[in-house]
Amino acid sequence: MRGGHVVIIMQANVPDELLEAVLARVESGGARPHLSRGIERTIVGVIGGDREFEPEIFEAMPGVERVIRILHPFKLASRDFHAEDRVITLANGARLGGPGLLVMAGPCAVESREQLQATAEAVARAGAKVLRGGAFKPRTSPYSFQGLGEKGLMLLREVADELGMAVVTEVLTPEDVGEVACHADMLQVGARNMANFSLLRAVGDTDRPVLLKRGLGATVEELLMAAEYILCRGNDRVAVCERGIRTFENSTRFTLDINAVPVLKQLSSLPVVVDPSHSTGRADLVGPIARAGVAAGADGLLIEVHANPTEALSDGAQSLHPEAFLQLMDEIRRVAAAVGRQAA
Amino acid sequence: MRGGHVVIIMQANVPDELLEAVLARVESGGARPHLSRGIERTIVGVIGGDREFEPEIFEAMPGVERVIRILHPFKLASRDFHAEDRVITLANGARLGGPGLLVMAGPCAVESREQLQATAEAVARAGAKVLRGGAFKPRTSPYSFQGLGEKGLMLLREVADELGMAVVTEVLTPEDVGEVACHADMLQVGARNMANFSLLRAVGDTDRPVLLKRGLGATVEELLMAAEYILCRGNDRVAVCERGIRTFENSTRFTLDINAVPVLKQLSSLPVVVDPSHSTGRADLVGPIARAGVAAGADGLLIEVHANPTEALSDGAQSLHPEAFLQLMDEIRRVAAAVGRQAA
Amino acid sequence: MRGGHVVIIMQANVPDELLEAVLARVESGGARPHLSRGIERTIVGVIGGDREFEPEIFEAMPGVERVIRILHPFKLASRDFHAEDRVITLANGARLGGPGLLVMAGPCAVESREQLQATAEAVARAGAKVLRGGAFKPRTSPYSFQGLGEKGLMLLREVADELGMAVVTEVLTPEDVGEVACHADMLQVGARNMANFSLLRAVGDTDRPVLLKRGLGATVEELLMAAEYILCRGNDRVAVCERGIRTFENSTRFTLDINAVPVLKQLSSLPVVVDPSHSTGRADLVGPIARAGVAAGADGLLIEVHANPTEALSDGAQSLHPEAFLQLMDEIRRVAAAVGRQAA
Amino acid sequence: MRGGHVVIIMQANVPDELLEAVLARVESGGARPHLSRGIERTIVGVIGGDREFEPEIFEAMPGVERVIRILHPFKLASRDFHAEDRVITLANGARLGGPGLLVMAGPCAVESREQLQATAEAVARAGAKVLRGGAFKPRTSPYSFQGLGEKGLMLLREVADELGMAVVTEVLTPEDVGEVACHADMLQVGARNMANFSLLRAVGDTDRPVLLKRGLGATVEELLMAAEYILCRGNDRVAVCERGIRTFENSTRFTLDINAVPVLKQLSSLPVVVDPSHSTGRADLVGPIARAGVAAGADGLLIEVHANPTEALSDGAQSLHPEAFLQLMDEIRRVAAAVGRQAA
Repeated sequence: MRGGHVVIIMQANVPDELLEAVLARVESGGARPHLSRGIERTIVGVIGGDREFEPEIFEAMPGVERVIRILHPFKLASRDFHAEDRVITLANGARLGGPGLLVMAGPCAVESREQLQATAEAVARAGAKVLRGGAFKPRTSPYSFQGLGEKGLMLLREVADELGMAVVTEVLTPEDVGEVACHADMLQVGARNMANFSLLRAVGDTDRPVLLKRGLGATVEELLMAAEYILCRGNDRVAVCERGIRTFENSTRFTLDINAVPVLKQLSSLPVVVDPSHSTGRADLVGPIARAGVAAGADGLLIEVHANPTEALSDGAQSLHPEAFLQLMDEIRRVAAAVGRQAA
Repeated sequence: MRGGHVVIIMQANVPDELLEAVLARVESGGARPHLSRGIERTIVGVIGGDREFEPEIFEAMPGVERVIRILHPFKLASRDFHAEDRVITLANGARLGGPGLLVMAGPCAVESREQLQATAEAVARAGAKVLRGGAFKPRTSPYSFQGLGEKGLMLLREVADELGMAVVTEVLTPEDVGEVACHADMLQVGARNMANFSLLRAVGDTDRPVLLKRGLGATVEELLMAAEYILCRGNDRVAVCERGIRTFENSTRFTLDINAVPVLKQLSSLPVVVDPSHSTGRADLVGPIARAGVAAGADGLLIEVHANPTEALSDGAQSLHPEAFLQLMDEIRRVAAAVGRQAA
Repeated sequence: MRGGHVVIIMQANVPDELLEAVLARVESGGARPHLSRGIERTIVGVIGGDREFEPEIFEAMPGVERVIRILHPFKLASRDFHAEDRVITLANGARLGGPGLLVMAGPCAVESREQLQATAEAVARAGAKVLRGGAFKPRTSPYSFQGLGEKGLMLLREVADELGMAVVTEVLTPEDVGEVACHADMLQVGARNMANFSLLRAVGDTDRPVLLKRGLGATVEELLMAAEYILCRGNDRVAVCERGIRTFENSTRFTLDINAVPVLKQLSSLPVVVDPSHSTGRADLVGPIARAGVAAGADGLLIEVHANPTEALSDGAQSLHPEAFLQLMDEIRRVAAAVGRQAA
Repeated sequence: MRGGHVVIIMQANVPDELLEAVLARVESGGARPHLSRGIERTIVGVIGGDREFEPEIFEAMPGVERVIRILHPFKLASRDFHAEDRVITLANGARLGGPGLLVMAGPCAVESREQLQATAEAVARAGAKVLRGGAFKPRTSPYSFQGLGEKGLMLLREVADELGMAVVTEVLTPEDVGEVACHADMLQVGARNMANFSLLRAVGDTDRPVLLKRGLGATVEELLMAAEYILCRGNDRVAVCERGIRTFENSTRFTLDINAVPVLKQLSSLPVVVDPSHSTGRADLVGPIARAGVAAGADGLLIEVHANPTEALSDGAQSLHPEAFLQLMDEIRRVAAAVGRQAA
């Protein structure tokens, strides 16, 4: 953990003994407090010292009005720590991060060999190098289709191998990590599990790249803290994915936080992926939002495609027809070129 | 799953063959479509039929503008299904739901026997019947104190037994459910795990009551769907907890959704708990918000108390001193009486 | 404006000349910078100096990572400036703030003399001392009923006078302020106009008390800044009203920010009013939320009542029947007593 | 107003007389109710009939659980009403909407002739055809710089005329509309005034094009309803501007709702503008977000540029240096070309 870098704001007219207790606590941690006395407030700056100086240590002390953290709480995920863009190379040679743009596409859920094969062939033909598809599906309703499980994993592997694609698929629980890692090239941690710390540790203990999706109520900083959980286990191949956050706007299922793309690129050197399918929930919006993601600097796109969206067992409304995807790939390539990168 | 109750709105000037495809799909599911043709839109009502009629089945069909669900998607959690208020009786006889008000209090995390004992004695003396305390702590930072684990569970059990209290504590992962259930009277599923469906199934398979906290980006409906996951495994002793949601307001850590208290009571017969500690993040706001929760109809309160908040290893800023808690219990009893219930 | 109290965080490894430019700018404003150099960041504390030191002055300077304001930007509205609770006494002697609780009730819109009279008599009988009712209605749709205008104002005045009530009504535009002030005892600035600064100045130039509603996308701090606009014109009789904010939750029209009640009471000495009608949009939730507001420390309530909600020209769904209001007043009195105040 | 198109959902087990009262009310408005009786709910579809059938008419009736509006409430602003894209041609021939992309740039506030001239020359040289600049500034703090007023308007006019540019500037209050319209080619209604209906009517009564910014807590539908206020006064030259909404994310000042760009283009034929400066609050994010806006389909961009951001009296942190703007124009042109349009 990063040494203490906090600013402590004392309440107006704070009694001397309370101020001194704060100063003593700072010093007991090996740091030197910088005192600034003003007419309306007194401020204590804490620079250096040991890791114990999290803001909350001081927040509960009497006389303290507010504690402000100066540094972001993540370290390994930060660009301060790792300056150059990180690049993740998958088993089939596809690269996420760096000069190229990586497109990952496929059905929301693996439903059958026929469905998967038809969809995978279409996306491969259009140029996608990574096949996405859910074998274990987290569903809001316990009565909805929950995925094919291990059978789905095997289908993904087989179909991807035939087409020279890599596989990214979601893992829901620590105990499944081993099995999913066995079949997949990249492990996806879904939005609903972004703060499932046991799962983060479990994927951090594998040697598989991880695609970590932002929680729908999580800040950018929390997303990077979740990445830190994985990185600090020794797995440094993590990509983060913006997939829409919860806001009051109800014309789309979620609100894609497009600002987060350049913010993440600035704070961190991890590759950034945009998911235009979940963030809009509507197939007719996937194109414009995919293009926007690329224009804003995303390193990859995660797009739902279904050979027959009308028959999809989940998320049909946001899945593209293969022809629509083919056309979108063309548009994406043009926008990618306009911002100086190549769609792969 | 509840039979189809949806209204399908077709796009303006929809061609006849698209409308007919929708009607055919409705009929193929065993339901009778009700067609209403207007000047600007045509509407298809679907009442009855089999469980397949989730809105998304129709959303992907060409010519469909929007699909509106008429019924809430939860069933077992609904007041339609179970009209009377449910009451959960814990091992020590404390009751959550019904005419009384149940107060659960204790430290955020179990830190040591001394800390736990001092705190537990104080809250028991003030009238709390349930001891809360975290043995497994979900922390945003991998570098923060993560709890004492099994040792914490045993301390909770011992201290609670000495005082005749019940224990509620959080479980983070399916594989820990057995062990936590062994020591605790009530299993808490935290906000960050509300949509961790594996965990929901695992607690649903125990015979322990469950305290299910609302996710910080989750709607009331999603909270009740998470409860449905537990209920449909056969465990019908579930209480839901409002603990604040993410909003733009930044003067408090979260925004307590007080409206959710009467909304939950109306939609569902499950007991409703309010957590004024996490929803505000500030000890000085716990009192007013606890009183408001009771006035709005909550069946229980979950309050953080620490014998020495300044030394707390987590969430000290929101923990009450024992004396402040003692005074709060008095206020709570008065408000409870004013709304016709008794604080236990 | 309050003298500069900001903390400037410089970027990592900032070159000396950029740091010196910041220090020079601080000194040119008459303040003394406090420099704290750490391993990872250098911090400049600015205490004192002239009003020019708003954070944004430094934010655009090269080498600056972030600027943190130490003091709230409002002054006259703050409890630092005015320590005791402010009390607003209306023309009929009703008091908002202080030991009592003031209930303001009436129809959303004034529709006719009959409607207003029937409603006003009912709420007066139940104990409300202030009559609310809209003569100028801000409506989302240009095709909706926009209020009776001046005729509505006169009806409010007449009916209130007959019953010994005070009148609070909304003013929409600076040019109407004179006329509304002529008929009303208290001027309401609606949520949609909270940041209509011309209107704030105009009501600040009258001698009428002002009920300022929080904007649905405004923070607590912005609400108090809006109050500051009125206060700094010399009108110090301002009450602020929490009426619900926009969040992702869609089971109610808005989310009442109950936390804001104690936060406002702590930051400011202005009276705080809660509007349970607009914040929920549903008559069946008005009771629990009104009770919660009182329990959290509100000084007043603003409640919509309609003699015949089914026939209301606006917001019928959230208006209480007179009998429901009568019962609610009883409940409110009990909760008020439980928290040590008297409903008037 | 559009005839009634609503679906009324009755409560479970609703008594016949309540259902009949609803049916009678539908018929009394000249519409024919379509009744669908299901096991769990009964639904009444209302198609046609007079404008009185707003959802709220039914919401207050006993036995009604929920009322769902089928049509959007705006008409003149809708693409249903006006199918082709609208194009606004300004006095200098610049066009907003249609195949080109229009860039509007300039300082946040007009501060002096020197500042304005230097900035305007720079943005004109870079290719911007419209000069933006605030003469009347809505400021959160009453103590902040409020703009030069009429003098600022005259400077804008003079400088723009010398450079062949059109002027867009904000108007804050109905009484200033005449004066601003006298000097400006396009009237801006700011985010804080989006629901200031008096102001909307006043700009609707001019013959000047209007740039209407989305309120920071307003939905897309409410933005189009605000446009409807202007359109229904006879002024059909309205453009809408996405400038960021309030969300929980705090790494940027607001969250640009990029989804809103294609949603607005689909629902309406009004030109859509994106403001990357206010939506991020940070100059270093303006480039990526401007590019994303264009890629998502925006017809125009509104960008803050200041000849010397460090000395700006307002919003310096989000203002681009002229050289950064020059480079951005280049990037914008490339992205515009990639999506099939030309930057003008």
